[in-house]
Amino acid sequence: MAKQLSGAGLRGQVAGKTALSTVGKSGSGLTYRGYDVKDLAEKCQFEEVAYLILKGHLPNQAELDDYKTKLRGMRGLPDALKNVLERIPKNAHPMDVLRTGCSMLGNLETETSFDQQQDVTDRMLACFPSIICYWYRFSHDGVRIDVETDDDSIGGHFLHMLHGEKPRELHEQVMHVSLILYAEHEFNASTFTARVCASTLSDMHSCVTGAIGSLRGPLHGGANEAAMEMIEGFTSADDAEEKMMGMLERKEKIMGFGHAIYSECDPRNEIIKKWSEKLAADVGDEVLYPVSVRCEEVMWREKKLFCNADFFHASAYNFMGIPTPLFTPIFVMSRLTGWAAHVMEQRADNRIIRPSAEYTGEELRPVPTISERK
Amino acid sequence: MAKQLSGAGLRGQVAGKTALSTVGKSGSGLTYRGYDVKDLAEKCQFEEVAYLILKGHLPNQAELDDYKTKLRGMRGLPDALKNVLERIPKNAHPMDVLRTGCSMLGNLETETSFDQQQDVTDRMLACFPSIICYWYRFSHDGVRIDVETDDDSIGGHFLHMLHGEKPRELHEQVMHVSLILYAEHEFNASTFTARVCASTLSDMHSCVTGAIGSLRGPLHGGANEAAMEMIEGFTSADDAEEKMMGMLERKEKIMGFGHAIYSECDPRNEIIKKWSEKLAADVGDEVLYPVSVRCEEVMWREKKLFCNADFFHASAYNFMGIPTPLFTPIFVMSRLTGWAAHVMEQRADNRIIRPSAEYTGEELRPVPTISERK
Ligand SMILES: CC(C)(COP(=O)(O)OP(=O)(O)OC[C@H]1O[C@@H](n2cnc3c(N)ncnc32)[C@H](O)[C@@H]1OP(=O)(O)O)[C@@H](O)C(=O)NCCC(=O)NCCS
Ligand SMILES: CC(C)(COP(=O)(O)OP(=O)(O)OC[C@H]1O[C@@H](n2cnc3c(N)ncnc32)[C@H](O)[C@@H]1OP(=O)(O)O)[C@@H](O)C(=O)NCCC(=O)NCCS
Repeated sequence: MAKQLSGAGLRGQVAGKTALSTVGKSGSGLTYRGYDVKDLAEKCQFEEVAYLILKGHLPNQAELDDYKTKLRGMRGLPDALKNVLERIPKNAHPMDVLRTGCSMLGNLETETSFDQQQDVTDRMLACFPSIICYWYRFSHDGVRIDVETDDDSIGGHFLHMLHGEKPRELHEQVMHVSLILYAEHEFNASTFTARVCASTLSDMHSCVTGAIGSLRGPLHGGANEAAMEMIEGFTSADDAEEKMMGMLERKEKIMGFGHAIYSECDPRNEIIKKWSEKLAADVGDEVLYPVSVRCEEVMWREKKLFCNADFFHASAYNFMGIPTPLFTPIFVMSRLTGWAAHVMEQRADNRIIRPSAEYTGEELRPVPTISERK
Repeated sequence: MAKQLSGAGLRGQVAGKTALSTVGKSGSGLTYRGYDVKDLAEKCQFEEVAYLILKGHLPNQAELDDYKTKLRGMRGLPDALKNVLERIPKNAHPMDVLRTGCSMLGNLETETSFDQQQDVTDRMLACFPSIICYWYRFSHDGVRIDVETDDDSIGGHFLHMLHGEKPRELHEQVMHVSLILYAEHEFNASTFTARVCASTLSDMHSCVTGAIGSLRGPLHGGANEAAMEMIEGFTSADDAEEKMMGMLERKEKIMGFGHAIYSECDPRNEIIKKWSEKLAADVGDEVLYPVSVRCEEVMWREKKLFCNADFFHASAYNFMGIPTPLFTPIFVMSRLTGWAAHVMEQRADNRIIRPSAEYTGEELRPVPTISERK
């Protein structure tokens, strides 16, 4: 059954071309450059998928090793950027911190020519975890952490800085899967923001800064945090069912459910759900996971609404000890690959994105002098 | 003759509704809430027009006085924001500074509820000139200026901080006109960026930060700076003609000409051109203005391309002693009103903006093991 598409929100309208991904078209429903996301999440590390998305093909071993070495060497933060992060208060939203950090980086390491687009992107990929953890640990624990760790992966680097110790293998593995699932998703709102910005021929930091701002919204990336806040308010599966029925009756939106394009399921859900179950067993959870499963059952039974990628991410991240406000920044660390690849694609065949509007306002009228105004 | 509209860049496609302005439809070609921009530029101060766009009607005298008093009281910058600005190097692009300043402000004075949208906007309107001048004077002259002046208008406040003395009446008047002309322009790329961001229900600072990044592009707001760089390379009208003919032959884009919607002229050009002429007489210019006029003639004769709002803004700003890199930030100080009003409109009747793409990439294929990859 195809999803009902109408004009509002440009739903179903073609706004451009892409060779990066398909959503709801082939395979399990999500492919990156022809590869099924399920296949990639089973067999690859995140760095392989980032390479695929950004550079066009899956790397061989030598290319992957080189790429990981390159990224490892770009984790450090300039002093001026650290100073800025130290001036951001503890109660700030981490997405605002990342948006500001990215924008500041654009002042210090400006992309002055499109020839630099790959390097500028790799730099952001390597240092966004540093930005978010440097600020988080400074504002919350009062420590100036060393961001130049030798962890093998981006996910490992993040967890290491966050918790102050090398992550367990299971956790590093879940980070690979999570970052792969979030990496790219066609013309979603934040990616489309980046493309509109790119179409004015602006720089990469502007495009990514704008995309971060869009991802922050609760209807988009912010949904994983909102889902967490909801499920941690439920004490048991039965409690969850009762409270959700109330929310549905009051016609409240339930975050982590529904999707603008998928009509029957989000292929990413099945994957992250399995890992959330594994993590629940690992930590001996008997509440959060069963609560989440019940939410899924109730939403399907009552509204035929299914979990999107964000819903089981909430419990999975929670089981790994990640504070809720950092959920959406992890999404950024990953989706950055998709954003940047879309910017490159837009630049390669550009026309400024400038749609029209339907006018619903006043007819032409003369300007009254100020004394004539009521 | 209607402009040829095709799908690329969403040109001519309706992406939503607005009651804020019409472009190329009635009056001289640009109306704000039903008032012709020509009429407004003749009879109003910028603050009246900002009020009109943001609050829905032209203010009477008491409302205008209150509004200006409110804005005057919001010019100060928090210390943390000043610290951030002091860490941005002199060679940074002022648009990157403003993008970062706006983003930082979002950390310090976060919009936590949409009830705050008017106040948050007024605050930005009042303090963007402070942000840009504080950084500019600190990085270029090594001084920490007092941003809380008692100037009557936003344009006056800006010129006062920039030059360290109260502006002349003529200059303050030109700023009113300029800010009015740039205030609002339907679904242009930066405004559309702000609306896409707003459609995720993100905060006002995210929307405006993203819009600044889009306006920075040379195909959009950046065109006034690019136009200035071009015309100051011409030594006379004849020299301009010769060099432009060469550029056209090499099929280079000439910044400050052409428009995505207007097909025969940009109504803002006639207005700012007159003021540029007046300023040229005032400073005794015998090069820049005649050069600009010749450029206009050549482009129309050769390509039927007309000056857009940006072209004569370049010489006008130059005659007022404004450094070229600050041209686009002035555009921000004004367009902020349109961006914020569009965000409010989007929020009032929202569906997430999530278009589709035409897929041009690889067919479904299995993931090869790493040793199988070439
Ligand atoms: C993702 C989302 C923004 C898609 O928006 P959309 O394409 O405009 O949504 P649809 O057209 O499918 O909505 C159809 C109906 O289902 C309702 N609906 C959709 N998602 C819902 C949810 N999570 N909870 C309750 N009702 C929901 C809508 O309100 C709409 O009802 P209406 O016709 O009475 O207004 C929307 O599903 C949503 O807000 N989900 C929650 C936020 C979220 O999880 N975002 C992350 C996405 S990856
Ligand atoms: C404003 C602008 C981005 C509109 O883009 P658009 O809607 O895609 O442009 P059009 O469809 O009208 O272009 C039609 C043709 O005129 C050409 N053209 C448009 N503006 C031109 C310019 N300033 N100089 C030279 N050629 C120009 C285009 O290249 C195109 O030629 P093509 O068909 O051979 O590719 C474009 O005119 C431009 O780049 N202008 C210069 C930048 C500028 O001043 N921007 C500020 C706008 S307020």
